[in-house]
Amino acid sequence: MTTQQVLIAGQWQNAEAESQFQPMDPTRGEIIDTSYPVSSWSDCDAALSAAAEAFSQMQSVSKEKIAQFLEAYATAIEKNSQAIVDIAHQETGLAKSPRLSDVELPRTTNQLRQAAKAAREASWCMPTIDTQNNVRSMLQAIGPVAVFGPNNFPLAFGSASGGDFAAAIAAGNPVIIKAHPLHPGTTRYLAELAHQEAQNAGLPKACIQLIYAMSNESGLKLVSDKRIGATGFTGSRKAGLALKDAADKAGKLIFLELSSINPVVLLPGALEQRCSAIAEEFANSCVMAAGQLCTKPGLLFVPASETGDEFVQQAAQRFCDAPSGTLLDQYAAETIFNLTSELVASGADLLTKNYHEDSQRFCQANTLLSVTSKVFLSNQDIFQTEIFGNASLVIRYNDCEDVVRILEVLEGNLTGCIYSHTEGHDDKDYPRIEQAMTPKVGRLINDKMPTGVLVSAAMNHGGPFPASGHPGFTAVGLPASIKRFTALKCYDNVREQRLPDLLKNKK
Amino acid sequence: MTTQQVLIAGQWQNAEAESQFQPMDPTRGEIIDTSYPVSSWSDCDAALSAAAEAFSQMQSVSKEKIAQFLEAYATAIEKNSQAIVDIAHQETGLAKSPRLSDVELPRTTNQLRQAAKAAREASWCMPTIDTQNNVRSMLQAIGPVAVFGPNNFPLAFGSASGGDFAAAIAAGNPVIIKAHPLHPGTTRYLAELAHQEAQNAGLPKACIQLIYAMSNESGLKLVSDKRIGATGFTGSRKAGLALKDAADKAGKLIFLELSSINPVVLLPGALEQRCSAIAEEFANSCVMAAGQLCTKPGLLFVPASETGDEFVQQAAQRFCDAPSGTLLDQYAAETIFNLTSELVASGADLLTKNYHEDSQRFCQANTLLSVTSKVFLSNQDIFQTEIFGNASLVIRYNDCEDVVRILEVLEGNLTGCIYSHTEGHDDKDYPRIEQAMTPKVGRLINDKMPTGVLVSAAMNHGGPFPASGHPGFTAVGLPASIKRFTALKCYDNVREQRLPDLLKNKK
Repeated sequence: MTTQQVLIAGQWQNAEAESQFQPMDPTRGEIIDTSYPVSSWSDCDAALSAAAEAFSQMQSVSKEKIAQFLEAYATAIEKNSQAIVDIAHQETGLAKSPRLSDVELPRTTNQLRQAAKAAREASWCMPTIDTQNNVRSMLQAIGPVAVFGPNNFPLAFGSASGGDFAAAIAAGNPVIIKAHPLHPGTTRYLAELAHQEAQNAGLPKACIQLIYAMSNESGLKLVSDKRIGATGFTGSRKAGLALKDAADKAGKLIFLELSSINPVVLLPGALEQRCSAIAEEFANSCVMAAGQLCTKPGLLFVPASETGDEFVQQAAQRFCDAPSGTLLDQYAAETIFNLTSELVASGADLLTKNYHEDSQRFCQANTLLSVTSKVFLSNQDIFQTEIFGNASLVIRYNDCEDVVRILEVLEGNLTGCIYSHTEGHDDKDYPRIEQAMTPKVGRLINDKMPTGVLVSAAMNHGGPFPASGHPGFTAVGLPASIKRFTALKCYDNVREQRLPDLLKNKK
Repeated sequence: MTTQQVLIAGQWQNAEAESQFQPMDPTRGEIIDTSYPVSSWSDCDAALSAAAEAFSQMQSVSKEKIAQFLEAYATAIEKNSQAIVDIAHQETGLAKSPRLSDVELPRTTNQLRQAAKAAREASWCMPTIDTQNNVRSMLQAIGPVAVFGPNNFPLAFGSASGGDFAAAIAAGNPVIIKAHPLHPGTTRYLAELAHQEAQNAGLPKACIQLIYAMSNESGLKLVSDKRIGATGFTGSRKAGLALKDAADKAGKLIFLELSSINPVVLLPGALEQRCSAIAEEFANSCVMAAGQLCTKPGLLFVPASETGDEFVQQAAQRFCDAPSGTLLDQYAAETIFNLTSELVASGADLLTKNYHEDSQRFCQANTLLSVTSKVFLSNQDIFQTEIFGNASLVIRYNDCEDVVRILEVLEGNLTGCIYSHTEGHDDKDYPRIEQAMTPKVGRLINDKMPTGVLVSAAMNHGGPFPASGHPGFTAVGLPASIKRFTALKCYDNVREQRLPDLLKNKK
């Protein structure tokens, strides 16, 4: 079995490998017969040097050329969709249809095309011209961007094709792709297409590079290296915080998406009005993709009332009845089981099973837990730990102030949602809940579940720490997401012919 | 002698003090007869709780009311200008005129009024409305902001009146003012006016609070506290990095301005054309305000040529002839002397004196050093250490590549400047120098010295680390500087009447 090659400085080459790894097929629980290298620092070092040179070259590449690359790449993904979906399915267990081929792949190409449009129209540069004083400024590319993608969206958030990749390239930055070890083959396939189209479009040879894996130590060195401009990371809180610490110390930017439990508050009127419908929405939102979504509703506030009891019973039944999805990672089931056990030991009631009979496929029973507001507050750190997967926690609350007290101790989240009566029966409580929730979330939602992050110019996929590392930026939605990978550059008294085109006087 | 009171939760009150301190009069070298408290953590804690409450209240205060406060405060400063200038002069030794009364005070009121205008027109909120999907987003106030101002601009960058203060308030955030210990009386006077006008305008009672000093430990706790939204810090690199580390670990934003040596490259043609004029500009820019400016040209690239020799001789003469300004701090002269000695020990030539006869006033001889490019590169960390004060280092370079090699090893700077021949005789070298300089600076300048940071919408007073902590933001220039103290908030499917006004459908 040969080991796959890394892409450095425009060349597919054998890695300077410290070791090798093989991904797994989650639907069968079997090792996939392809080997990938864990690169030593020398690969990272070579990629950084090549990226620094590519960055310099890219500053004289037109935005039109970058846009053409992004569009050609989107088209190449469509042409190769069958192969991409096949390998992504094999490595992640995500359904080929509708998930991969009908949802995630079109989302990916849509994002790339929106990034192309944004590269062309350049509104994200925010050119500001003070002609009277001849001072001008705009946002410009920041430097080589390292992209660490997550395990759960091999295409739309993938490090070779997702939102961070598209945004970094659209700004004019070279990208160093760090594959996720659970789907290295998908990433390799995409990186190959991207590299080919980038060369066709005349971009610098090192504008796209690929490394599959590296030691933790090398990862820390990479994000804090002098040659790096910024890093985009979506993944586990532990790994993200270690990278953040290294980058922060070096004064390097890192945009993170770490963890979120996405509180959803069901106000009494909403439940009186549409108990069953909300139970169905909630259960669907939690078990979809085995709950492996960063915006899964992980914390649901339900009134301690008869209707609340009815709701919880219906939701639990739906959790039990729904087939459990396939988990991405062979260790995920154990993690969910352990966290569930910890919540139970801390005073939560388990409303479903916490085991799964199926022994081959990676999976765990859909899990619903319940806790009183008092018990939640007695152990708030444990109870607001994200369980990445098909498990959620219900809090039974007594009144509005109960909800507020809990919202006030929550960490930052990507989203927060309030369901209320459509005829205004909850309008008395809404403002109080909203005021407590807004500072804790990046996106405030009414009357629908948080899963399904629309690619919209107005989207915010971000939020207060630890949902993200900087609450001023979004990871989804163009052109705004591009701003993460830019720096403000000012031209003071600079002669007209030396200015970037966007800052020249209008003819 | 009584100790001045802190302002917490709307009340002037005795501090819970750990100790006291007294500022000095730099022009006499004498202790000023007023005592200020070093607050214990309990003062900080009380201020944080009050600020959190004020933040919540401020979200229902109209932008018009905030604007009215900023304008009324500017007027109050003008009405009290004599007293403000007197106390600022006594504490800092900065000239009453033109510096304090004719330059810095009008700059301060101008900034406050521009902030008022920005609060009203709210373009910095960047409202984005996707009506088709009913997703909307905008930048909003982030939470209580702690402002640590620098020693060198008691008014225009002062923590009770400067750019960070104005930007934080304009965004709708309460401010916790941390006075600079070298001018606590100036800060107290301004905070008193600000508090009074804030109350007149109907702002929350704790929207402006004042603490003079605290232990390092309490400072670290303050910037990383859960109740804080963000911190603005301008000051020493050592203190700033300690605060940054604490804030970063807690996932809290901190906007820093730390250090900058502001490289200036004199290309050969420029020197052939206007040697004396540039020598005059350079010397003036370095000795003005005793060089205690964050954009002082601290590193000057001069060709190793006869004209270069002539330039250096003229500049050194001007350094020797110019009266040395008063330094802000009693330890500044010693620091400059020590750093100068270190550069000499590392191979630099001293072209001026390095001592000053005057023993009362805080001062040091205007200091110019020179080094070859080779020696600079042999000890690049030492030679790019900022000397905050009236000292600068000349590098004698052999050719364009020499300059590029040095620019490539520089840390981030606020500014970088290139002087070139007006008829194009340097146009061959300019692009290469510009390309190497741009990634290292926030503001690229042509043909003028970097001192004098214009308050312009297009200004960037920021840059790559360690010039600032985030190269995407400016500390000077409205409305852009406001964005530092905001978070992106998205409203997804939120009912029309619940939206912020800026996000409602246009009637």
